Amino acid sequence: MPTQISGITHTLQQTIDVLSQPVDGSAAMLDCDFRLPSVDAMKSIISLIREIVFPGYFDSTYVDHRMQHYAIGVSVDRLFTVLVNQISRGFITEECIEHESAQAEKRAQEIALNFIRRLPELRRVLYTDVQAIFHNDPAVSNSSEIIFCYPVVQAMIHYRVAHELFTMGVPVIPRILTELAHSLTGIDIHPGATIGEYFSIDHGTGVVIGETCIIGNHVTLYQGVTLGAKSFTLDDDGHPLNLPRHPIIEDHVTIYSNASVLGRITVGHHSVIGGNVWLTESVRPHSRILQRKASSTLYTDGAGI
Amino acid sequence: MPTQISGITHTLQQTIDVLSQPVDGSAAMLDCDFRLPSVDAMKSIISLIREIVFPGYFDSTYVDHRMQHYAIGVSVDRLFTVLVNQISRGFITEECIEHESAQAEKRAQEIALNFIRRLPELRRVLYTDVQAIFHNDPAVSNSSEIIFCYPVVQAMIHYRVAHELFTMGVPVIPRILTELAHSLTGIDIHPGATIGEYFSIDHGTGVVIGETCIIGNHVTLYQGVTLGAKSFTLDDDGHPLNLPRHPIIEDHVTIYSNASVLGRITVGHHSVIGGNVWLTESVRPHSRILQRKASSTLYTDGAGI
Amino acid sequence: MPTQISGITHTLQQTIDVLSQPVDGSAAMLDCDFRLPSVDAMKSIISLIREIVFPGYFDSTYVDHRMQHYAIGVSVDRLFTVLVNQISRGFITEECIEHESAQAEKRAQEIALNFIRRLPELRRVLYTDVQAIFHNDPAVSNSSEIIFCYPVVQAMIHYRVAHELFTMGVPVIPRILTELAHSLTGIDIHPGATIGEYFSIDHGTGVVIGETCIIGNHVTLYQGVTLGAKSFTLDDDGHPLNLPRHPIIEDHVTIYSNASVLGRITVGHHSVIGGNVWLTESVRPHSRILQRKASSTLYTDGAGI
Amino acid sequence: MPTQISGITHTLQQTIDVLSQPVDGSAAMLDCDFRLPSVDAMKSIISLIREIVFPGYFDSTYVDHRMQHYAIGVSVDRLFTVLVNQISRGFITEECIEHESAQAEKRAQEIALNFIRRLPELRRVLYTDVQAIFHNDPAVSNSSEIIFCYPVVQAMIHYRVAHELFTMGVPVIPRILTELAHSLTGIDIHPGATIGEYFSIDHGTGVVIGETCIIGNHVTLYQGVTLGAKSFTLDDDGHPLNLPRHPIIEDHVTIYSNASVLGRITVGHHSVIGGNVWLTESVRPHSRILQRKASSTLYTDGAGI
Amino acid sequence: MPTQISGITHTLQQTIDVLSQPVDGSAAMLDCDFRLPSVDAMKSIISLIREIVFPGYFDSTYVDHRMQHYAIGVSVDRLFTVLVNQISRGFITEECIEHESAQAEKRAQEIALNFIRRLPELRRVLYTDVQAIFHNDPAVSNSSEIIFCYPVVQAMIHYRVAHELFTMGVPVIPRILTELAHSLTGIDIHPGATIGEYFSIDHGTGVVIGETCIIGNHVTLYQGVTLGAKSFTLDDDGHPLNLPRHPIIEDHVTIYSNASVLGRITVGHHSVIGGNVWLTESVRPHSRILQRKASSTLYTDGAGI
Amino acid sequence: MPTQISGITHTLQQTIDVLSQPVDGSAAMLDCDFRLPSVDAMKSIISLIREIVFPGYFDSTYVDHRMQHYAIGVSVDRLFTVLVNQISRGFITEECIEHESAQAEKRAQEIALNFIRRLPELRRVLYTDVQAIFHNDPAVSNSSEIIFCYPVVQAMIHYRVAHELFTMGVPVIPRILTELAHSLTGIDIHPGATIGEYFSIDHGTGVVIGETCIIGNHVTLYQGVTLGAKSFTLDDDGHPLNLPRHPIIEDHVTIYSNASVLGRITVGHHSVIGGNVWLTESVRPHSRILQRKASSTLYTDGAGI
Repeated sequence: MPTQISGITHTLQQTIDVLSQPVDGSAAMLDCDFRLPSVDAMKSIISLIREIVFPGYFDSTYVDHRMQHYAIGVSVDRLFTVLVNQISRGFITEECIEHESAQAEKRAQEIALNFIRRLPELRRVLYTDVQAIFHNDPAVSNSSEIIFCYPVVQAMIHYRVAHELFTMGVPVIPRILTELAHSLTGIDIHPGATIGEYFSIDHGTGVVIGETCIIGNHVTLYQGVTLGAKSFTLDDDGHPLNLPRHPIIEDHVTIYSNASVLGRITVGHHSVIGGNVWLTESVRPHSRILQRKASSTLYTDGAGI
Repeated sequence: MPTQISGITHTLQQTIDVLSQPVDGSAAMLDCDFRLPSVDAMKSIISLIREIVFPGYFDSTYVDHRMQHYAIGVSVDRLFTVLVNQISRGFITEECIEHESAQAEKRAQEIALNFIRRLPELRRVLYTDVQAIFHNDPAVSNSSEIIFCYPVVQAMIHYRVAHELFTMGVPVIPRILTELAHSLTGIDIHPGATIGEYFSIDHGTGVVIGETCIIGNHVTLYQGVTLGAKSFTLDDDGHPLNLPRHPIIEDHVTIYSNASVLGRITVGHHSVIGGNVWLTESVRPHSRILQRKASSTLYTDGAGI
Repeated sequence: MPTQISGITHTLQQTIDVLSQPVDGSAAMLDCDFRLPSVDAMKSIISLIREIVFPGYFDSTYVDHRMQHYAIGVSVDRLFTVLVNQISRGFITEECIEHESAQAEKRAQEIALNFIRRLPELRRVLYTDVQAIFHNDPAVSNSSEIIFCYPVVQAMIHYRVAHELFTMGVPVIPRILTELAHSLTGIDIHPGATIGEYFSIDHGTGVVIGETCIIGNHVTLYQGVTLGAKSFTLDDDGHPLNLPRHPIIEDHVTIYSNASVLGRITVGHHSVIGGNVWLTESVRPHSRILQRKASSTLYTDGAGI
Repeated sequence: MPTQISGITHTLQQTIDVLSQPVDGSAAMLDCDFRLPSVDAMKSIISLIREIVFPGYFDSTYVDHRMQHYAIGVSVDRLFTVLVNQISRGFITEECIEHESAQAEKRAQEIALNFIRRLPELRRVLYTDVQAIFHNDPAVSNSSEIIFCYPVVQAMIHYRVAHELFTMGVPVIPRILTELAHSLTGIDIHPGATIGEYFSIDHGTGVVIGETCIIGNHVTLYQGVTLGAKSFTLDDDGHPLNLPRHPIIEDHVTIYSNASVLGRITVGHHSVIGGNVWLTESVRPHSRILQRKASSTLYTDGAGI
Repeated sequence: MPTQISGITHTLQQTIDVLSQPVDGSAAMLDCDFRLPSVDAMKSIISLIREIVFPGYFDSTYVDHRMQHYAIGVSVDRLFTVLVNQISRGFITEECIEHESAQAEKRAQEIALNFIRRLPELRRVLYTDVQAIFHNDPAVSNSSEIIFCYPVVQAMIHYRVAHELFTMGVPVIPRILTELAHSLTGIDIHPGATIGEYFSIDHGTGVVIGETCIIGNHVTLYQGVTLGAKSFTLDDDGHPLNLPRHPIIEDHVTIYSNASVLGRITVGHHSVIGGNVWLTESVRPHSRILQRKASSTLYTDGAGI
Repeated sequence: MPTQISGITHTLQQTIDVLSQPVDGSAAMLDCDFRLPSVDAMKSIISLIREIVFPGYFDSTYVDHRMQHYAIGVSVDRLFTVLVNQISRGFITEECIEHESAQAEKRAQEIALNFIRRLPELRRVLYTDVQAIFHNDPAVSNSSEIIFCYPVVQAMIHYRVAHELFTMGVPVIPRILTELAHSLTGIDIHPGATIGEYFSIDHGTGVVIGETCIIGNHVTLYQGVTLGAKSFTLDDDGHPLNLPRHPIIEDHVTIYSNASVLGRITVGHHSVIGGNVWLTESVRPHSRILQRKASSTLYTDGAGI
């Protein structure tokens, strides 16, 4: 066996040497030492916020509700620390700088504190989402069940936290937060999207909400709905420009499963978009958009269609 | 730095005080001490059932098949204990009572024992699902591969277990079980749905099967299929009534990708529903429903459509 | 309580005895002792390859880039060992043989070594995917973000590794690898599919790419796109034949969200397929295929559509 | 191989049958269903008390010392819950009763609350131990090092907590707590022993302090010291009677390494007991006890003595 | 900073190169590829045996005692598998051979089966140890407490298992097992020692029992007792010969704390050896050996002795 | 129950308030924010060094010995990073400064690099210890067994690493490292002690080696040996002065079990100190010191001595 192992070792060593050289033209990708934000830290940010916003649902019970106060104190304390650490990593990643980390930490501290200040409002809005879900779902009997196991609640916690941080100019982290929710729920909301109160998504798998969407209050989506871009303009380097390119959905709109609403169009308030519709033009308030009727024939042959 | 830290601490403490007060109008949400079922316990329920139903696939191998008997014994013993514990938590959550937990445990014990009695039948039906998947997929060569890595098998174990518990009146737990499968597979089957034998779903992401669906034997679905509600009736409080509102799918029906079948309609046996179809009316047996043909033009301009 | 517990024990023991007998007709399923590949080992294969291909993104930082060489060496060394172990398990599972494991290990060793040799090329192609994603997404500002958190990158690592192993004749493992990505990202690419360079998928949830697909370079897909089979031919045993049955997508094609492209058809180069389209016939190069316009009415009544 | 495996299985099954029968005469050992206290719960009790008594040493840092209040609140809340649970298990184990668990929990609740009330005093005494250690060790420069890494601190936390619970009549748990410290530090203090303030042990391995010891203030022990029993009286069943049988050590006594002080004797205050001494009679205050001088010869031969 | 990091990297790389060369003269130490037994596997061997011998103490409770049968079956099944695997690793380590692993596995299988056959006897003897401990300790009220938390029980399980394997000629593993107990309890029993029934050790820290000791029934040791060698004979290479060199302790002997009994001497039955005694000559049955009395003076000066 | 819970909560809150105030007079203990070194980081330092010094014993096997080079590279790289981080924490703890952490990190970097440079020498000396142990133990047949499971090897790795760092002026960390070994092995070596080559300890539990000990080459100790201080001088504050106060042990000395050698005395080369001896005066080279003979009587009465 020695000779055989010797040959294996030789091949491994040669491949290692090749892999230790950067890919041609990819130098720019790897040209600075960065410390990327940690996915585990992201998970603990969400976990702490869940304990603060919905106390008793995801952590252990207390001797008594009055003891909750301490638990919230500890969660807020930890949340602040994790946020400062991760936000400053975000700045360092973005700007490829490590030597200015003291300044990065100072900016991170300010942002983290602002975020903490926003927590009561964040909580209030998340409770409106829970109420909206409750009013839309005949299959549910109490809000505990919604908070505890509905994927849309998870997606909305991730999104609303990410959106706050996005608005405050935090790089990278908002996107990681929403991609975590995407992986868990199949709901992909860009942190840049603006979403009003009492928002609900039923089932949710396959929902996509683009970066420049503006969504009003009391809007309901079903699984597979895309609020996307129809096209985009390229800059001189051939990279697409980041312009408003996603729909505006006004208050009290419902969009059924697998509908695609594309481009900077407006869906007027109190409209209903039917399932599987492909919509690329604005519609007036109180509209009702349906797919054309499918053709029907008798089915005779064996397998397939 | 002391003064700066002092300011931070002050802000944190103020926010903690606000967050320690309930949100206005949400009092009802949190007005009893409950011990929610544990997600980890749910995972171990499914894990134990997988080891019982498909022995050797998900646990360690045995010296010999005859030793399997002991492993099944241990799994059933543990399963009973976990079920009793979680089901009684389910009752407590639902009814917001802790002082009657002795009675809750007695009811839980009866249900858990009935569930154990149903295990052989549950196993038999799951094997019909594996066979159906095997017969529908040209890409697979043996059933080990299906059992080991097809998401639909995972979804069906979760659903069939959840459906048994749902039928026995267990609250909350059935929904948690199917949401776990939903997160892992993108397949969202309500535990209340009734599904016959030899059921298969290919790929599966985005499939939604509503609470009052009735599905026959030998039915096949593809990814993105919705068997949903078209509308629902509100009660006097504005909360939707839980009435039959999802389709009835008869035996030997195949529904292709991204089709939406909505409302209390009947799809007759041996029918085929084409992909991306939006169907809200009943169809006779042996029907074949297709989307209208797409328009085609030559594509000339740069980016987008 | 003794009598009650006695009754419970009796029921448990009876059920255990039934469950220790195989299901009728399922004997073939369980008739050999196999050691299935380990899902944890699959995860570590992907994890090692990510560290080799994108060093610094998923592991800890180094003192200096020049120290990376050692980390790549260790990863390649471990990767080789894990691959040999898992590939030989794959052969054993497939052929239901344990007594020939020495031979299985020798074949596994050859394949693992060939796979290692392919790593630099695999890396090169994955970098073209990252570039393609970067050029398609106005919302992203640098490729670090793409590598670190875009689900399509994860899906492509899994697919491209699985495809190499599939091509080398490794059983079971390629499918487990792509199903892992499917669960995490909602993107379901069969390891048998052939995909060119500069491939990108946006959002991705619900994408299905079938076993016999052939996809050119510079192809872009959006969420919910199915490249599937329209029908399949059964063999004499009623099991479907594994023939070419999925689309050929030529270079520079873009397919928008929720479109279904089915059967052994060809989508000519530089074509654009609109969202929600159901396409079962070949289209010429430079085609532009759109869904027919939806019908629109004013929406008046209360709930539902 | 089948026949060989068959023989193995046969032997395993036979042995399992034998092992499923109780050992002759050991019936009494196993004749009730009990739920023993959990070792992990014991560890978390100690861990919570360490965080309460020495905040900042064993848990994460805070934004600011003023945030410590919340962490102490959470620790006390959890400690109370774990104590109630474990103490009632202790009663159940002792009395072999499960049907009276409601009463056991009530007693446990009272004891746990009394224990919580004792925490400030417990903390005060532990601080005197830290000071005593600091004053006895020329090799240490600050008390942080003592708290963080001296085994005697660990041993004293375990002992002082165990002693409180022992005094309150809690069964089993005190002994588990001190045995945990014994395993970690080699210091074996029976929870029944009475130990004053400003107590210190240097190095500690092999120290044994018996159940009925009474130790004053400002006592110092070195490694290997035994404060043990010389003999014990048997009851009519031949089981030893639990009478006072260990030494009384008055204030300001120092006992050097490996000395054995045995029986219900009194070591008068301000005495020094030399190393390796075997002492079975009382000594007056201000005594100084030394081992007789060793014999010395020139050493000539090869190995051994 | 680049230049500084450059210097660091240079130093690290140089040191790595030196460390990649073997130490002079140590070649023999590392000249074969071996797979050492796994410490985690050792721990699971002990854990499985504890569950088999003392069911209900260290694992979860059962619905009913009659369900224990299954748990014992699973434990025996796993124990056999782990033993075969580890024992064959032991042979491979010892003989520096990997190519004969099939034969090593066959020998391992025979030994593991013999070990399983010995389990009922092993259990019987361990129960005599528990009884002996119970009769020697005035501080204990029931045997549950002994089994659950006395270090000597842990030490005796490790020793008695290790001794069986040692006697069957298994290399390396017996020593690892007793060293694990040594680390946890401070009791160091060589697996080669022969120890009769009803053996007990109180406190235990510092006890050493040498390889060629022969200990009768009903023997009791206290902490710090050494049953050691006085000298050893060297072979021609200067390595000590492995001859009988440790004491023979007859039935019903008690040896008190910190006594050293050295050399191939015999301590006659029903003897008592006092604490801190240094004994290198045989003593007749019914002897009573005590340390000479310590000298006593009044203690006057400040610190130290 | 509400009133009862109310009372519990009240007591808990009151106690929390008391515990949130510092103990009187202990203010100095807690007056700065420090980040103590992490025990887990200490464990990984030792683990990395074990992999570097004894490659193949504690980590996974390699394809081939030539691949070890990469593993050593990665271990050295990580070791450097962990050391820099922990050493600078050590400085911060000692000096109660956080604002100068940049300077602390620079000093830490220099020390860590010096430590890395010493690794080859550290390895060489550890191999002499392994050889010494091998030559002293008749019960061992190869050095693999020593390296893999002898507690003294573990103790010596911890000590020799700690001593290097102690010599370089690193605070706190050396002591944590040796206390970890103390807990695992019962061997307590102060990092300040100076120990020559070819050092061995048999069994080891209870061995204590003081801070100012100087030990030559080829010295062997047995379990329970104390090389301690006899007395110490107090400074004006009553704190003991850190002066040379422990023995000097010259080359080729053997000290048997439980001997205590105390004070700044010299044990001449080639001396043998017998077990249980209490030695406080210097002895000439080639001395042989034994305990006086024990008294012996016939043993007649029942229990005890």
